[in-house]
Parts: sequence; structure tokens; C-alpha cells
Amino acid sequence: MTQAQSPIRVALLGAGTVGAAVARQLYARGPLLASRVGAPLELSGIAVRDLSRPRDLPGVPEALLTDRPEDLIDGADVVVELMGGIEPAHGLLTRALEGGAQVVTANKQLIAQRGAELEALAAERRVGLDYEAAVAAAVPVVRVVRESLAGDDITWIAGILNGSTNFILDMVARQGMSFEDAKDRAGELGFLEADPTEDLEGIDAAAKIVILARAAWGVPVRMEDVQREGISQLTDHHFDTARGTGQVIKLVATAWRSGTPESPKVEVAVRPVSLAGDDPLALTREGGNTIVIETASAGALRFAGAGAGGEPTASAVLGDVVAAARRVVAGRS
Amino acid sequence: MTQAQSPIRVALLGAGTVGAAVARQLYARGPLLASRVGAPLELSGIAVRDLSRPRDLPGVPEALLTDRPEDLIDGADVVVELMGGIEPAHGLLTRALEGGAQVVTANKQLIAQRGAELEALAAERRVGLDYEAAVAAAVPVVRVVRESLAGDDITWIAGILNGSTNFILDMVARQGMSFEDAKDRAGELGFLEADPTEDLEGIDAAAKIVILARAAWGVPVRMEDVQREGISQLTDHHFDTARGTGQVIKLVATAWRSGTPESPKVEVAVRPVSLAGDDPLALTREGGNTIVIETASAGALRFAGAGAGGEPTASAVLGDVVAAARRVVAGRS
Repeated sequence: MTQAQSPIRVALLGAGTVGAAVARQLYARGPLLASRVGAPLELSGIAVRDLSRPRDLPGVPEALLTDRPEDLIDGADVVVELMGGIEPAHGLLTRALEGGAQVVTANKQLIAQRGAELEALAAERRVGLDYEAAVAAAVPVVRVVRESLAGDDITWIAGILNGSTNFILDMVARQGMSFEDAKDRAGELGFLEADPTEDLEGIDAAAKIVILARAAWGVPVRMEDVQREGISQLTDHHFDTARGTGQVIKLVATAWRSGTPESPKVEVAVRPVSLAGDDPLALTREGGNTIVIETASAGALRFAGAGAGGEPTASAVLGDVVAAARRVVAGRS
Repeated sequence: MTQAQSPIRVALLGAGTVGAAVARQLYARGPLLASRVGAPLELSGIAVRDLSRPRDLPGVPEALLTDRPEDLIDGADVVVELMGGIEPAHGLLTRALEGGAQVVTANKQLIAQRGAELEALAAERRVGLDYEAAVAAAVPVVRVVRESLAGDDITWIAGILNGSTNFILDMVARQGMSFEDAKDRAGELGFLEADPTEDLEGIDAAAKIVILARAAWGVPVRMEDVQREGISQLTDHHFDTARGTGQVIKLVATAWRSGTPESPKVEVAVRPVSLAGDDPLALTREGGNTIVIETASAGALRFAGAGAGGEPTASAVLGDVVAAARRVVAGRS
């Protein structure tokens, strides 16, 4: 760090809740991030679909907004994708990786459905593809399974990975609200999308456990492999029965290894489970996420925190951006 | 990965409980580790003080043992130090870093007291110095504060970082044992050293919070900076008072930032604290460790698991070895 480093150019695709939070923090934490990376981070542009829409981006120059993502990507060291959806995100990230950029994304459906292909391309081009924010926001489980536990043999993963359904189930369990009232309340508070199918049917949780399973065991796992059951078929009768025995119903995503460590077979499931009241997963409150990872050597490790929200998700994205930028600096020498 | 990679030479310094577990797993998980690294790991030798002492190293060729650590270091890509103590560990790791080896250590007193100097040397020689196992065994808090949260602003860290004292306090709180009886029982079960001062006076926890604070904020923090109070002065009266109000006494290590994120001042403390019964730290049982990290964007993140033991500590060491070996492979291209 004895000579001044030229800036790392960071291109942002998407300026929704998470994108806006990432852009704001890139400015607000500029000196801090520069000291951690060893070079300044320069936001080279923000690609949006509709340039005329008003944005909540205090401190971010309006001239950075563009509706031409390809131009941004071609000049970037690090491409950060926060648009969501499969296309055009998939095409744009393929272009970024082929051009030799480091890629960071929070796009869980993209990584669940096309992650294996994108990871193979990243490996071929010797660049990083990081997606910590795609699972449990800032709860750092992706890095943990890919790096911290890379010397261990992970045997199973169980998690509460969808904050919306946990909020509903927690209101029923702890406040005695009826299931229907709890769903209405979650909708009013913005915990459910206008179309809540992805949450209630376990599709969101399924994408996240598919991502974790592939990251943990390095084998192909597809959305269709998930034995999936949501919470929409539950009734107050189920909740009364659980309560009567001191249990709590949670929507639990699980992945476990059969076969050998060297030649693993992986099974994945998302379903409502009745848990003992003092189970670490049962203690997950409101919109929180909890993940338990069991390994041959480390035993059971537990992780918990906010599973969604603009700022927590931005924290995970920025952690990946710092890692990507450090790789760019290391590659310059 | 299209061409065969020559092996990564791993030198092990120390063959105690953790060293033996690391050596065994390097053999048992050889193919798995090779696939994760992209090159085979070759244990090039194990340095021990006394060659005549019998070792529990099934599957490990006896010819690998040596009492000449310098020779091992000079031919190694990755040096793993599991001897403990300040010297000769400090001198040997200095030699390893100066020679351009990646270094992994589980030595908490060394990293707490001389970590800043060793990290500066590692940065100068552009090699890695990793020490996940020095704090909370396989609970991956060091990597989390150095990498996952590198884009965030950590405001405080609180943790139960000493399993031995937690075991004692948990027996008093949950089984109603007297403080004296609980100490005796912990000694019988091997949870306390022959000289239990390091645990009971909070010196072990102090070293760990010093390491976390420096990793989180990148500022010099010394053992002398810790406001430290152990549990040896507690009496049954303290425990009865806590119990009467539904509280639990725990030995809590804390670090918090004052000043600004760019120019942080850090304060560190270890002391017995009376906590509400449902506090995440209060729920730590037996020899477990729990760490809560609060940041500006992510909110409170919680981590828990076994805080000690040969296998959990080996898991953390091997995670660092894989990361170090991946750097060696990346540097070859």
C-alpha cells in the first residue's frame, strides 16, 4: 500500500431498495472501504430500467444513472447485480464474467436456477462470483459453507430462511393470533408481497436451501429436487395441537448428505415442522432467520440475524464487494 | 483445473490434541480437500519437541515426525502452528512469513500479544496469516469480522468466549450446584487446566476479545487495555441474587467502538454480567461459545457452537489451511 492505487470501478445493476442502500453506503463509507480494500471504490454507474422514475439516492450524482447496462459492465472491475429475476440479469452477468469482471449478486432465483453454469464460467475466467446476500441477508452462511467449513465434512443444514412466513408463524405461536389474521397483519406490515405465493408455498426458502446445498457439497441441486410443502394448507387446528404439547410450528428448510463425503448425494426439503419450544430454530422471532449447520468435526454451529431488509442485505452485498475488490487489487500486482 | 497440480506442502508445528486431529483429517479427508483446493495437500512433516513420546496418529507415517521445525518451514507452502505459547512459536512463524509461506495458527496468546507485528509482516510479504481457531474454535467469527462484515460498520461485539467458566456458571445456574462444587466438577471433567487461573481470571477470554477487536477495527488493542474481572471473586450470594430475579450470571467479553468508523477508538472488557434469562448469551450451555456482533447495517448477528476441543478446533484450522492452499494455487498461475 505504499503507492496510490487507481480506483476499483464498481457498476451497479438495479436501484431498488437494496441497490439504493448499496449506492448510499458506497458513498457514506467511502474512506472506510478504501482502507479495507487498499484502493478507492468508484461507483461507475447505476443501471436502471426507467430513467424517469424518482429515486431515493441522496449524495449519489444523478449523472451516474443509465439505462444501458452493457456499457457499464464493459468498463467495470466489479459488477453488482441487484435487479432480481432471471433475464436480463443472467445475460448481463454472463457478459460481465466473460469480460473478466468480478461479479456480486443478491439474486436468489438466478443463483438457484443458473448458479452452476455461472460458477463454471467464473472458474473458467478465473474471477469470483459471490452471492452472500442471496441467502439470509447478512447472516454469513454462504461464506461459512464455502470457506470456513471447507476443511470439514458438512452433514446437514437446517434453517428458517423465509422471514415472511416466520413472522406469520411467530404471531400465531407467541401472540395467539389466528392464522388468517396473522397473514393479513403480515401483509399490512409489508412482510408479504402482493402475490405471496413464493413465501407461503416455500418457493423462496427452496431457492435458498438449493443455493446452500450446492455451495456446501459442490453437487448439482435443482429447484425440482426440493421436497416442498408450504404453510398455506395449515389450519388453526395444527397450531392448537402444537401449542398443547409445548411445540412450535416453523417452516424449515433442510439439506442433508447421503453417500460419502467424496461422492455426496444431497437431499433437500422445505416443509412445516413441529419443533420443541427450546429448539434453536423454534426461538426464531418475527422476520428473523436461523441456520444450524452440522459437520463431522465442528458439531452443530448456529447462526441467526435479520433475514431481509435493504440495509442488512446491503451489508452482505458490500462484504462481497470488498472481497471482490481485494481480488482486483491482488491481481494487479 | 485441466492440468494436474503439484502438491501443496503443509508443515505442521505441534502434535498435541489439535495437531493430531489436524494430521489425521489431512489424511482422512485427502481427496475431499484436494478437490476443494484444486491441488493435493501433502503433509510434509510434523515438528514435535520430544520425538520419543508416543503419539495418537493412526494413518500418519512415523517418518514425518521431526524435532527440527526450521527445516520443515523452509520447504513448506503452508505452515500450521499448533504449539501454543509465545516462543518458539513467534520466531518460527516470523521465519515462515519471511520465507513467503502462508501461515495458519490457533495460538491465541501469540495472536493477542504479537498479532499486529505478524500481520504487518504478512502484508509486507503478501502472504496470508489466518487464525480462525484462536477464537471460539469452529465458530467462524474471525472470518466474519475480517471478510463478511468488511463492508459494514461494526459497533460492538459481545461474547461468551471461555467454555470452561461457562461450564461452571451453567452448572450453578441450571443445576443449582454450589459454586465450589461446580469448580471441582469442571476440574474432574477436564474442563479446567491444572492451573485454572487463565480461565477463572478471564485471561483466556481477554486474549480472544483482543483478537476479535483488532480484526474488526484494525486498530492496536493490547492485553493491558482489557478491563478485566474474572469469576473467582463470585460467591453463592451473587448467584442466589441473580436467580431470585430470573437472571443468569455469565462471564462476558465485550468490545465496542467509540470515535468514528474511520478513526475508531476501541474499548474492551471481560467481566461477570447478570443477564436476563432469555438473552442470547444467557442461553449458552455447558462448554459452548456464543458471540453477538452488532453493526450499523446488518443489525445484531448471533453465532454459537462448541468453543473448544480437538476436533472443532481442527475444523477451524483446516478451513484456514484450505483458504491458504487456494491462495498458493492462485499464485501459481
